[in-house]
Amino acid sequence: MDLVELTRRFRSVRGASEALCEPLSPEDCCAQSMPDASPAKWHLAHTSWFFETLILEKRNGYRPFDPTYRVLFNSYYNSLGEQYPRPHRGLLTRPSFDEVLAYRGHVDRHILESLENGLDADDLSVLELGIHHEQQHQELLLADIKHLLSQNPLHPVYLAESDGGERASGAAVADLGWCEIESGVERIGFAGKDFAFDNERPRHRVHVEAFALGNRLVTNGEILDFMADGGYTTPGLWLSDGWARVVSKGWRAPLYWEQRGGGWWTFTLSGMRRVRRDEPACHVSYYEANAYAAWAGARLPTETEWEILASAVPVEGNFQESGRLHPAPLSSTGPPAQLFGDVWEWTASAYAPYPGFRPLTGSLGEYNGKFMSSQMVLRGGSCATAASHIRCTYRNFFYPEDRWQWSGIRLARDA
Amino acid sequence: MDLVELTRRFRSVRGASEALCEPLSPEDCCAQSMPDASPAKWHLAHTSWFFETLILEKRNGYRPFDPTYRVLFNSYYNSLGEQYPRPHRGLLTRPSFDEVLAYRGHVDRHILESLENGLDADDLSVLELGIHHEQQHQELLLADIKHLLSQNPLHPVYLAESDGGERASGAAVADLGWCEIESGVERIGFAGKDFAFDNERPRHRVHVEAFALGNRLVTNGEILDFMADGGYTTPGLWLSDGWARVVSKGWRAPLYWEQRGGGWWTFTLSGMRRVRRDEPACHVSYYEANAYAAWAGARLPTETEWEILASAVPVEGNFQESGRLHPAPLSSTGPPAQLFGDVWEWTASAYAPYPGFRPLTGSLGEYNGKFMSSQMVLRGGSCATAASHIRCTYRNFFYPEDRWQWSGIRLARDA
Amino acid sequence: MDLVELTRRFRSVRGASEALCEPLSPEDCCAQSMPDASPAKWHLAHTSWFFETLILEKRNGYRPFDPTYRVLFNSYYNSLGEQYPRPHRGLLTRPSFDEVLAYRGHVDRHILESLENGLDADDLSVLELGIHHEQQHQELLLADIKHLLSQNPLHPVYLAESDGGERASGAAVADLGWCEIESGVERIGFAGKDFAFDNERPRHRVHVEAFALGNRLVTNGEILDFMADGGYTTPGLWLSDGWARVVSKGWRAPLYWEQRGGGWWTFTLSGMRRVRRDEPACHVSYYEANAYAAWAGARLPTETEWEILASAVPVEGNFQESGRLHPAPLSSTGPPAQLFGDVWEWTASAYAPYPGFRPLTGSLGEYNGKFMSSQMVLRGGSCATAASHIRCTYRNFFYPEDRWQWSGIRLARDA
Amino acid sequence: MDLVELTRRFRSVRGASEALCEPLSPEDCCAQSMPDASPAKWHLAHTSWFFETLILEKRNGYRPFDPTYRVLFNSYYNSLGEQYPRPHRGLLTRPSFDEVLAYRGHVDRHILESLENGLDADDLSVLELGIHHEQQHQELLLADIKHLLSQNPLHPVYLAESDGGERASGAAVADLGWCEIESGVERIGFAGKDFAFDNERPRHRVHVEAFALGNRLVTNGEILDFMADGGYTTPGLWLSDGWARVVSKGWRAPLYWEQRGGGWWTFTLSGMRRVRRDEPACHVSYYEANAYAAWAGARLPTETEWEILASAVPVEGNFQESGRLHPAPLSSTGPPAQLFGDVWEWTASAYAPYPGFRPLTGSLGEYNGKFMSSQMVLRGGSCATAASHIRCTYRNFFYPEDRWQWSGIRLARDA
Repeated sequence: MDLVELTRRFRSVRGASEALCEPLSPEDCCAQSMPDASPAKWHLAHTSWFFETLILEKRNGYRPFDPTYRVLFNSYYNSLGEQYPRPHRGLLTRPSFDEVLAYRGHVDRHILESLENGLDADDLSVLELGIHHEQQHQELLLADIKHLLSQNPLHPVYLAESDGGERASGAAVADLGWCEIESGVERIGFAGKDFAFDNERPRHRVHVEAFALGNRLVTNGEILDFMADGGYTTPGLWLSDGWARVVSKGWRAPLYWEQRGGGWWTFTLSGMRRVRRDEPACHVSYYEANAYAAWAGARLPTETEWEILASAVPVEGNFQESGRLHPAPLSSTGPPAQLFGDVWEWTASAYAPYPGFRPLTGSLGEYNGKFMSSQMVLRGGSCATAASHIRCTYRNFFYPEDRWQWSGIRLARDA
Repeated sequence: MDLVELTRRFRSVRGASEALCEPLSPEDCCAQSMPDASPAKWHLAHTSWFFETLILEKRNGYRPFDPTYRVLFNSYYNSLGEQYPRPHRGLLTRPSFDEVLAYRGHVDRHILESLENGLDADDLSVLELGIHHEQQHQELLLADIKHLLSQNPLHPVYLAESDGGERASGAAVADLGWCEIESGVERIGFAGKDFAFDNERPRHRVHVEAFALGNRLVTNGEILDFMADGGYTTPGLWLSDGWARVVSKGWRAPLYWEQRGGGWWTFTLSGMRRVRRDEPACHVSYYEANAYAAWAGARLPTETEWEILASAVPVEGNFQESGRLHPAPLSSTGPPAQLFGDVWEWTASAYAPYPGFRPLTGSLGEYNGKFMSSQMVLRGGSCATAASHIRCTYRNFFYPEDRWQWSGIRLARDA
Repeated sequence: MDLVELTRRFRSVRGASEALCEPLSPEDCCAQSMPDASPAKWHLAHTSWFFETLILEKRNGYRPFDPTYRVLFNSYYNSLGEQYPRPHRGLLTRPSFDEVLAYRGHVDRHILESLENGLDADDLSVLELGIHHEQQHQELLLADIKHLLSQNPLHPVYLAESDGGERASGAAVADLGWCEIESGVERIGFAGKDFAFDNERPRHRVHVEAFALGNRLVTNGEILDFMADGGYTTPGLWLSDGWARVVSKGWRAPLYWEQRGGGWWTFTLSGMRRVRRDEPACHVSYYEANAYAAWAGARLPTETEWEILASAVPVEGNFQESGRLHPAPLSSTGPPAQLFGDVWEWTASAYAPYPGFRPLTGSLGEYNGKFMSSQMVLRGGSCATAASHIRCTYRNFFYPEDRWQWSGIRLARDA
Repeated sequence: MDLVELTRRFRSVRGASEALCEPLSPEDCCAQSMPDASPAKWHLAHTSWFFETLILEKRNGYRPFDPTYRVLFNSYYNSLGEQYPRPHRGLLTRPSFDEVLAYRGHVDRHILESLENGLDADDLSVLELGIHHEQQHQELLLADIKHLLSQNPLHPVYLAESDGGERASGAAVADLGWCEIESGVERIGFAGKDFAFDNERPRHRVHVEAFALGNRLVTNGEILDFMADGGYTTPGLWLSDGWARVVSKGWRAPLYWEQRGGGWWTFTLSGMRRVRRDEPACHVSYYEANAYAAWAGARLPTETEWEILASAVPVEGNFQESGRLHPAPLSSTGPPAQLFGDVWEWTASAYAPYPGFRPLTGSLGEYNGKFMSSQMVLRGGSCATAASHIRCTYRNFFYPEDRWQWSGIRLARDA
């Protein structure tokens, strides 16, 4: 990426993070609703800490904005010292939101100065990584805010809704079709010169048996059918760990769903609204995705299968930029649809290194590699993902019990 | 209390609560650092809910400020319906701090109008109770804010310090003397017409054996001696449950103490400062108080013993109004000293009903009586207690492991 | 107690402990069903450890049966060294039951030899204490075995039943009457030369207001009425901590009760049997006792009130020696009835030192004193208590949530 | 397998299970040292339950030995009804050990009769599966007994040791060599007619990049070097979840290791013995295996890589039949060594279905498939595995934190 474009991207992404906080009060930005989530303010600070610690601190004469931030806003980089305990991030009422904005301004000024004065190739790489890192945190920030607001009986509205969703229960959706792929040796993973995370590399050969993927996402209507058929009370549909979770947590619908009178409602960033049958199912765990697939006589795709199909499709969809921040009913006709945007698609693949994987050197080696156990790969981005952030080789990962991301389901089957 | 005085007290106490929040940001007022603590904003709202629910809602034509507050700000009154889960109070970023102030204004206006229009005797009783209730929450608010700020590595200062405490390690304190009381039948408990809580009644006869109480509080210096003598590592000094807590929590000093280099520092509402030997020991649990007493060859007083002695002493001391919000070194000479203010004094008495105890009727019966198990009585008020709130018959109560109140130690022994 | 009698008591109590294990298999004697309970084998070994460690080990030339037992069978004496972790006692499959019997034989032989050769007064005191200690463990052993067997869906029978209880639902019980006592200064506590625990001393004066105690125990029939009237679903009847326990544990009847078809059954040492309305209620926590009393418009007695009444009554009742090991329906006519035996009676008194309390010296100081927090006093002994073990001054103590002892309810009220 | 051979195998495996309990007392066989482990008696009963429930109960006129066993000894088959709670299996002191042996005799007689009278092909398949199922439980029984005995400070000896291991610290071990394999498309999985579990099927094509596997297992000596180099205190070597476990559990050596004076000892089925440098490292979690590999500049093999190499090697090694029940120092010279027996080898592969995987039908579908999340594949069998039970396609699986199996490490690297 040339310097001009990089500078533009930096300014734009940094500005976008702050724009996401505009509908929020300082209190909204400070609270933490569960250990997995972080306060919005913390996201704003941590993404700045990333640039400061990994670029600015190495430069002669740079004085940190506040030396205590080094610990406060370190997420999980053991090689960069201590970390303030993650479950307590919501207790950091100081620095204030305004102080964090001042911190952001300070870091922005120094980064932009550095860009003008010349950064070496390594620093430029880190800068580009930092931009993508910040885009990841934008999505986390939105998911975390949604979770926080959902805990409040006042059902606060983050974003006014434009589509009249509350009144409609959703149009009919075409029957699921299948996109078939032949068996053979294929290549997956990233090989180009553009930006990609270390975990997407190297591009490598894989053998796949013939398979087929659903031509669209699973819908809320289909989940309602699953529920009506006893999906959440039939242990035989579930992985053992999944069923244990169903029982211990009392799951009986996707996260944020609430029964009111005869029907189901769901909490969205636009407040409570009726569950629409035609929208893609969302906020399900891997366990629910797997159980639904079992019920439907299908299975989840491997990440290899997903990528083979997705590599033939343009990276277009319902992303953060649409301003909807909610999955959209199927609109396109040509199969396969909805591969990008709307919801992250759970795959059947555990998050693991590709053959020949090499983590980044230094502290950045902690970015991705150390999480390669017990998590599952998700693909395709969601309605909260920035369009410029996603690729068909992109590997997201969460624990199989996680539900607070915009995560959904695409079916697969052997051909 | 006459109506004019009651009105004056209402205005004054309501204003004082808000004044306590002036040094705080909206974020400070929203966060909750542990399930036992509540956000400052919640205290402001709950004390208003008390007046609204128990007085205003019974009046014709009153319209609640917001009906959802009935659940949000109900603390523990099962007879008044559901309660928002206590451990999640810090997630209530809405209503905002300003909205809560507006709620307070609304309640204040209606209460003052009601006072002008005439409240019946029952309502006036509840109003007076509500004023004392709010004073209790003022002290809780300060204790909760102290705990919250203590979690922040920035060591935020709530209150500028005026006494140069950081530099001084404290003057010498006179040796402990003893105030002796003969055995006999005495009376304790409240009998007058002024305000007192139900748990202070009825006044009743008790028999005591001859005893003596320390003529001052135990000091930090004495706690340091206890620590130096292995107090926190000698199980024989501790109650069994207390020792289990020492081990499981790793206690090795009072709460908020931190070892820096050679010396001990402590977090105060004025930030970190050196532990002064001449200040009363504070932020100790009942278990620590009991272990210290055992080490000192003494015991803790019963609440009967304490009240017999305290009833002969004027209710004067270092209270909230001093603006210090920290225990003060011994200044008075005449024994017994420091019975009121500075720190709540742990007694050896479990919190239980007095003979003939009758809880208030209706929902207010839940105010005190239902907590009469597993807690210990503390007496005398602290540096965070309003002077107009305390009496020699006043019974405070906390669990024996609690340390975040300004709680300290007075010794007793058999005469 | 003279030496002959002491020797007789020693032999008799030691034999009784082993006899209690006769209906049990080695596996029954090894398992531990919860951290509060201990395996029967552990009780057999620990009571021997007590004699060995506190008497034999001080004697010249004594060689311990096995030095590792010093840690394995130390219950909670920190002054006597490490303890094997209490929750893991059920993992001690070695030493075997037979080895523990051999250990008992070894200790018995040496104690009896010592008795012949002459023990000094201190040792004789410890020996007498050890005999009472073993009787305490006999009752614990029975309670622990009952809890263990109750976990087994096979409902094992420890003891064949002789009274045809399964078929009867119980005769009618006379209405509750009241025994009234005047107010005044009385004396409670133990003062004689016979054996008593340190916590029963010293005898001291107390002032009581006029009161009345129920002339019999609360029955299962009354508990069934309480249940039918929503007792377990009405928070207003409960202490706050008690209600929290009801909710978190799902309590809806006394421990061991189970609904089968239309009726209630209960697990006993003779297996499952119908709940008889005329039997004293049993296996209730302090919280349940307190809630029942509130529902009945009464309260629980203080230990002072209980002892004043009980001191006028002979120590007779349904004890371990009856071989029933279950509370018996009311038989006697003269009030007050059932003060001794049947069930331990929860009092409203927290377990605390009497004025002037002095714990035993040395390690035995850990016997009683260190448990004087957060527990409640129970009085009168139960159907599992040895008759020779109980006195009217005897103070038993358990946590308010404990239910696995034979604990029941006597009502009190202000006169 | 022909009927004669099947009958012989059935008799032999059933007898072997009971023989494993011979060194144990009934108490040893009843206790449960953690929720993951089961009592030996439970293993004996459950393996009988398997034959009874899945074969005998379907036969006309069969009367269950005891109908309550259907729940008591159901492990996790939701399709076969309720299960007694797993963490409480140690409370089942009844049925006694002898009753369980009688149960086994009853089942054996009926199975052998059925074999004589003719079982259909499906039943014969289930019978063969049941034999392998019992062999799996033999290894679990040994691992669970080892864990139980390890909790006992008496360090009970299950098996007298024959090799003088206590005195030797171990001979030198040859440097690690590498076995290299070219890249290409290979086949893995089971395809024959003999017995294999459903999870080993179908045989399918995979593409591998060129790789190399260590020619022997990692040794205790190498783990000691890792420890001496700060392996357990260097977060950068660990997966994130692994490091969290190191911190929360205080891991600083493999399970069962204990520092005594200057050296390390380890608990074995033959009691405590010195750690021998030349023995294969054992009782490590996946996290430790992964961290060791990172420290050694290598990685763990995928299960594909492991199977490709192992398929060229005879299935020979130190198995249960050697009677050693402990990994043995390297003896063979020809590479690669120790692929079978000694220790299960952690692979980098999450346990997942092979392409085209079909679980068994009916209740047996719960045998393997529902565990395909969050666990890692281990390969090769251990010193506690029966020789007739293992294959090169065999896939074992445990959670990455599990350490109580005989699990060890083989290194891999890219070629």
